[in-house]
Amino acid sequence: MELTVNLKDKSYPIIVERNARLTLRKHYDFTGKKALVVTDEGVPDIYALEVQMQLPEAYVVTLPQGEKSKSLENYVKLQKELLEHHFSRDDVVIAVGGGVIGDLAGFVASTYKRGIHFINIPTTSLSQIDSSIGGKTAIDFENTKNIIGTFYQPELVLVDLNVLNTLEDRQLNNGLVEALKMGICLDKNLYKIFQENKQYEKLDEVILKSIDAKRQVVEKDEKEENLRKVLNFGHTIGHPLESFFEMNGLLHGEGVASGMLFMIEDKALRAEVKSILTNLGIKVTNDFDRKKIMEYLVNDKKAGHNTIDIVLVNGIENYEIKKVTFKEVENILERKI
Amino acid sequence: MELTVNLKDKSYPIIVERNARLTLRKHYDFTGKKALVVTDEGVPDIYALEVQMQLPEAYVVTLPQGEKSKSLENYVKLQKELLEHHFSRDDVVIAVGGGVIGDLAGFVASTYKRGIHFINIPTTSLSQIDSSIGGKTAIDFENTKNIIGTFYQPELVLVDLNVLNTLEDRQLNNGLVEALKMGICLDKNLYKIFQENKQYEKLDEVILKSIDAKRQVVEKDEKEENLRKVLNFGHTIGHPLESFFEMNGLLHGEGVASGMLFMIEDKALRAEVKSILTNLGIKVTNDFDRKKIMEYLVNDKKAGHNTIDIVLVNGIENYEIKKVTFKEVENILERKI
Repeated sequence: MELTVNLKDKSYPIIVERNARLTLRKHYDFTGKKALVVTDEGVPDIYALEVQMQLPEAYVVTLPQGEKSKSLENYVKLQKELLEHHFSRDDVVIAVGGGVIGDLAGFVASTYKRGIHFINIPTTSLSQIDSSIGGKTAIDFENTKNIIGTFYQPELVLVDLNVLNTLEDRQLNNGLVEALKMGICLDKNLYKIFQENKQYEKLDEVILKSIDAKRQVVEKDEKEENLRKVLNFGHTIGHPLESFFEMNGLLHGEGVASGMLFMIEDKALRAEVKSILTNLGIKVTNDFDRKKIMEYLVNDKKAGHNTIDIVLVNGIENYEIKKVTFKEVENILERKI
Repeated sequence: MELTVNLKDKSYPIIVERNARLTLRKHYDFTGKKALVVTDEGVPDIYALEVQMQLPEAYVVTLPQGEKSKSLENYVKLQKELLEHHFSRDDVVIAVGGGVIGDLAGFVASTYKRGIHFINIPTTSLSQIDSSIGGKTAIDFENTKNIIGTFYQPELVLVDLNVLNTLEDRQLNNGLVEALKMGICLDKNLYKIFQENKQYEKLDEVILKSIDAKRQVVEKDEKEENLRKVLNFGHTIGHPLESFFEMNGLLHGEGVASGMLFMIEDKALRAEVKSILTNLGIKVTNDFDRKKIMEYLVNDKKAGHNTIDIVLVNGIENYEIKKVTFKEVENILERKI
């Protein structure tokens, strides 16, 4: 299945199919091009090799696994690689990994010689469903997530459903929270799959529908000036929770899960979503330091000086983007989830 | 005089007038906005102060003067400033200085929180005529000029002709070489001013015409995919000369001056341009290590693997953008200039 993200001269295809990683050369002309393949130790190394063997001249860089790799140090390391191998503006950077690798490699590609070609091959459910689509690139800096980055669209995204077979259950579910988010806000048929607890047997459909929902939002609002803010549902509190519980290894989707519940106004829906999260093996949490969470939130890159846009949900496909004061967020944090 | 760079949703005004720096608030609404004013020790400090006093909340950072400031270290320093003062996406970075400051501050603005507002107040003839227009941002890295950067348009450019009064003659002429370049390739009336040696008495007109010529090129080809390459006239060899003579303190315009002569095919015109350069106090040079120059050139970010686009001039407003092999550039370097 091929979807197209329509962004005028920056449009690009997303190929969603089993073994998509092996079809790279079919979808992109690498004649005369060098490639830098960026991956990490958490990704089975066969994937980067399979990509490399399809290309005329490819260098593979394998970084340590984890959020810590999304650093200025690795940004500099990759820039040096490109320079040392005399990469020109005609050459290409290929990410083979999860969101950390995609965000980092995308940021490198967007700034080397003011922008070279970029291809993303996401290998986790989270990156396939969410971070590989829409052109957000970033690194973390001074303990702040995604604080430095660009909007830079890839030229091709290969979503290989087979690579999810090697993913642990907890990682798979981590990504499915973002699919659930997309269902709640944007696609009642997608939500229904979760309601019926069929997300595992219909996994291909869940991923395809999620990508398609995100694609439509990005097409309408690439730079997050209005509509795209809906994708932040669950993240206003989810991101701070992720930072707060970083030591405990809380995953992005797990933070977003609790973050969504706080923002659901309808109590019956809140209970239903909570039970869906239980199906996904996710335990939501009420037990955290409100003051600390607010400190993280004030530094969110989406926050203004005294206000922040939040996404409130009243029902399926029924949401509201609302500018509220930090004080109002504090009140929302008092809700029982 | 107000010119508009028309780039759809990224359009912006360039204000060209005496004391433009004092009219900042007239052209931009700073209500509720923080500003980071970036300048360097080579710029009279009164300019940054005059900018600061017009704003509700402004922090000034003064960097050391010179190309060395266009570094990753200063990029990181400025990012930290923005973070420490809790700058949001609604806030603004203002460059008050020459090309080094404009390029660096623009790159910071383009990547902090994936892009915040950017205003440029160029204070040298070179930056007024050339680098402040067109949205190229960059830092130097690993001894390579402008190797990391973005295309990112400012929202306002204030060209204050009065600040040139404090500029040394050699610096003024450094910028006028770029004006001459624009005249040769794009505007015969501008060229005529140089031909008649009236560039000093008609300085306002020279700067205005140069900006207008560049504006038109950028509007037609923002990302340098074709037409914008004309602006590289004189730079293919000029940049390497600049690197080669860095220790001798050769200025950008001085490198470009020799670089242009090599690329002029018509001998009579070459002689005429050489005499204009003499009027500008610029001595061109034939005396350098060809092999070393070629090494720099191969690493130019505009070069491909074996070829590079050069701009050849046959007459005024008569140029040709040509893809040539490195070998052909070597032959061109054998010309007597």
